[in-house]
Amino acid sequence: MNSKYKDDSLALHTDLYQINMTETYWEDGIHNKKAVFDVYFRSLPFNNGYAVFAGLERVIDYLQNVEFTTSDLTYLRDELGYEEDYLAYLKDVRFTGTVHSMVEGELVFANEPILRIEAPLAEAQLIETAVLNIVNYQTLIATKASRIKQVIGDQTAMEFGTRRAQEMDAAIWGTRAAYIGGFEATSNVRAGKLFGIPVAGTHAHSMIQAYRDEYSAFHKYARRHKDCVFLVDTYDTLKSGVPNAIKVAKELGDTINFSGIRLDSGDLAYLSKEARKMLDEAGFKSTKIIASNDLDEATIINLKAQGAKIDAWGIGTKLITAFDQPALGAVYKLVSIEDNNGVMVDTIKISGNPEKVTTPGLKKVYRIVNKLNNKAEGDYIALEHEKPEDEERLKMFHPVHTHISKFVTNFEARNLHTTIFENGKLVYVLPELYEIQRLAKENLAILWDEYKRTMMPEQYPVDLSQLCWDNKMKNISEAQKKVAGITSAKKK
Amino acid sequence: MNSKYKDDSLALHTDLYQINMTETYWEDGIHNKKAVFDVYFRSLPFNNGYAVFAGLERVIDYLQNVEFTTSDLTYLRDELGYEEDYLAYLKDVRFTGTVHSMVEGELVFANEPILRIEAPLAEAQLIETAVLNIVNYQTLIATKASRIKQVIGDQTAMEFGTRRAQEMDAAIWGTRAAYIGGFEATSNVRAGKLFGIPVAGTHAHSMIQAYRDEYSAFHKYARRHKDCVFLVDTYDTLKSGVPNAIKVAKELGDTINFSGIRLDSGDLAYLSKEARKMLDEAGFKSTKIIASNDLDEATIINLKAQGAKIDAWGIGTKLITAFDQPALGAVYKLVSIEDNNGVMVDTIKISGNPEKVTTPGLKKVYRIVNKLNNKAEGDYIALEHEKPEDEERLKMFHPVHTHISKFVTNFEARNLHTTIFENGKLVYVLPELYEIQRLAKENLAILWDEYKRTMMPEQYPVDLSQLCWDNKMKNISEAQKKVAGITSAKKK
Repeated sequence: MNSKYKDDSLALHTDLYQINMTETYWEDGIHNKKAVFDVYFRSLPFNNGYAVFAGLERVIDYLQNVEFTTSDLTYLRDELGYEEDYLAYLKDVRFTGTVHSMVEGELVFANEPILRIEAPLAEAQLIETAVLNIVNYQTLIATKASRIKQVIGDQTAMEFGTRRAQEMDAAIWGTRAAYIGGFEATSNVRAGKLFGIPVAGTHAHSMIQAYRDEYSAFHKYARRHKDCVFLVDTYDTLKSGVPNAIKVAKELGDTINFSGIRLDSGDLAYLSKEARKMLDEAGFKSTKIIASNDLDEATIINLKAQGAKIDAWGIGTKLITAFDQPALGAVYKLVSIEDNNGVMVDTIKISGNPEKVTTPGLKKVYRIVNKLNNKAEGDYIALEHEKPEDEERLKMFHPVHTHISKFVTNFEARNLHTTIFENGKLVYVLPELYEIQRLAKENLAILWDEYKRTMMPEQYPVDLSQLCWDNKMKNISEAQKKVAGITSAKKK
Repeated sequence: MNSKYKDDSLALHTDLYQINMTETYWEDGIHNKKAVFDVYFRSLPFNNGYAVFAGLERVIDYLQNVEFTTSDLTYLRDELGYEEDYLAYLKDVRFTGTVHSMVEGELVFANEPILRIEAPLAEAQLIETAVLNIVNYQTLIATKASRIKQVIGDQTAMEFGTRRAQEMDAAIWGTRAAYIGGFEATSNVRAGKLFGIPVAGTHAHSMIQAYRDEYSAFHKYARRHKDCVFLVDTYDTLKSGVPNAIKVAKELGDTINFSGIRLDSGDLAYLSKEARKMLDEAGFKSTKIIASNDLDEATIINLKAQGAKIDAWGIGTKLITAFDQPALGAVYKLVSIEDNNGVMVDTIKISGNPEKVTTPGLKKVYRIVNKLNNKAEGDYIALEHEKPEDEERLKMFHPVHTHISKFVTNFEARNLHTTIFENGKLVYVLPELYEIQRLAKENLAILWDEYKRTMMPEQYPVDLSQLCWDNKMKNISEAQKKVAGITSAKKK
């Protein structure tokens, strides 16, 4: 560590360009113009049919506490050369904006504003990087966990990934996200303490090695741990581990609860079936089999298809790193800004990559739920002043083939945005973590199964309202005219 | 957060089973037996020819400070049901062990002990999870960065990934690891402050959108930032962005240094070549072109092959998440333990997965460097008491085809382990970060190019000494006899 600046604060957990842009805004006197930014991602991770939003709790904590410390400002001055006048301004910056957001556990789809940040331009800019850092990772893991939980079903899903997580924050916030996505427990004790997640775990191979044989190790372990799960693959699962576990359990009889064995290597389908037979024959029919070893949703589906006798699943690396797609690409885009007359005007970014074109304006997201069957027909993005809840029937387009459309009637239009901050004041009561998990489960229940398959799900409809679409086209057209103007001017 | 336990400490940043095993050791009175654990990974990430070790600085900080706080102990008692006698023991646990480790920036290969932890069994067990969590991620990213830097060569490599990193720790420790791997700068200001890494960045699309046109935005930006890099792809790179940048630079003349433009979307090969022409024709021959947008080593090789005119590279997602393999699988294995007579005896774990068999005993790792050409011939893992540096000639086996071997003479056997802690006392002077980067570079210089290719590198030889190999075979054979004994006992 740099010994000169030992104290740490999250105000500098931002990209340098945010501080540079803010300096320009401040110097030009536009830093307090009201600006509106949307947070959204452009495509769903893992080819999944939906994502599960997580990260809001940490975003709230960050926004409540973010401020430049004396050592932050000293660093900016002494090492990076920023000048005193600008630093004096930064010193007093706090987050005073308004945030509308989906709540954690909400299902979210591509191109939907998850958070809408309305704040003085400078403040909104300075917080971008940290907000994305938090939302991207936590939403990614909640989504991965939900995928895995879909195939695990009613059996127990446990997060075991700390040692392979991408540093310490990922381990604890990742396992919190996994809990939101439906996991029942974690091996990380710190996450248990900080978030109230149930913790799970018994012993490792090293304990067997320390005693140099399984029989002694299991016996010693059982003296203090009456609810016993024995790890049985240190030497040979079927020839040594399971027989030793059974032997010790029989000897100790009612003094312990032989609740399970854990398999951590080898062919889990074959081993679990053989171990099940051995346990049943020995009279331990209620002793569970727990499996771990690089599991993910695809492996679990295959193990189940082969009739594996596994009752509980410990998932590590593939979950905590979102191994098959370790980043979510949520972005933070300016959609509206106050002009010199104090009027909000919409803004757009067009791009060489068509999917990077933004959707201008203040928007809300509605989930259109059919009142007859309580299933979601699709999501509907409308401009702030629109009231889809008052419509009799709503036209919804196919998300890709837009010439195909349907009319929805007898629906409820649920506004997915909740006000979190109002002019810097937290107005949202944070729910307990178990409530967030329950909410995610309830949200999944109103989604048709076709969107929940882990392979080749159907595409859930996310429509822009006609007004929102027209506004986007108008903005694109104006931006293109501007470019054309430059080109023709250049030709003169 | 769980409002009952607001304070946070890293003692609980461990898997629950470590606390359970420790309880068994303590209850059985073997918690203070000396144990030796190796940290190593079984295969190189990214099919790379080498890995770059990083993480030691954070491991040191963790080991110096780890202790159970009052709230940790309260949590363990009130929520998890641990009893007072055991908690009273945990309260006083500190790390009092000895650590031999490779230093950061060292090149490391599969199955080599990176760290060797010798400590009372309980202490060594409790720290496992956090040590792996740190070493796995930081080594992974240093290695990924080194791969990318290999193809970037002498051009500038900048880490831009914070918003896509797996939470906040990954962003800052990842960019430190990237610096060790050869990157020159980061966009993360906090990492700049904490670690002294040079920071880089100019402005984003949102600044152009805030001013609603590039010409005004560039002008405003240049008022306070005399060293100007303009982002040119907000509307249309060649029709709008580059012409506007040139126009502003011409108008401002010598009052600014028009140091670069940044391309962040579209076909970077084509756009960079066209932009280069436009800049050259306008007289800005020394203005650099900086590229970003989901770059990795494969894309960079291809862009260079197509003659892209790019001078500096901003690498985000693919680096900071190690996108193509987001986890390193380093493990922590017991290799020796004190028996009841105070004698150290070796231990082994055999497994249904052959690559999971451990190598018993206290070992050292030597890099065998040919004195004639100063190139590494391979690494040599020997038992503690062996002295390969005193040998006249050394037999080294092909790592896979062990019947092929070579004799090395006129070599230097460099011991890669440095003593970091001695009985809990830090005896190592931490180097500055730039020294670590330089060390990594020097280490790469003695490696033949065949091991440094990013595609299909040759396999660098890592041999066990004859004694080390014989010891492993003896231990395997004993463990198998034990298993066979159980099986035949069962048949009776």
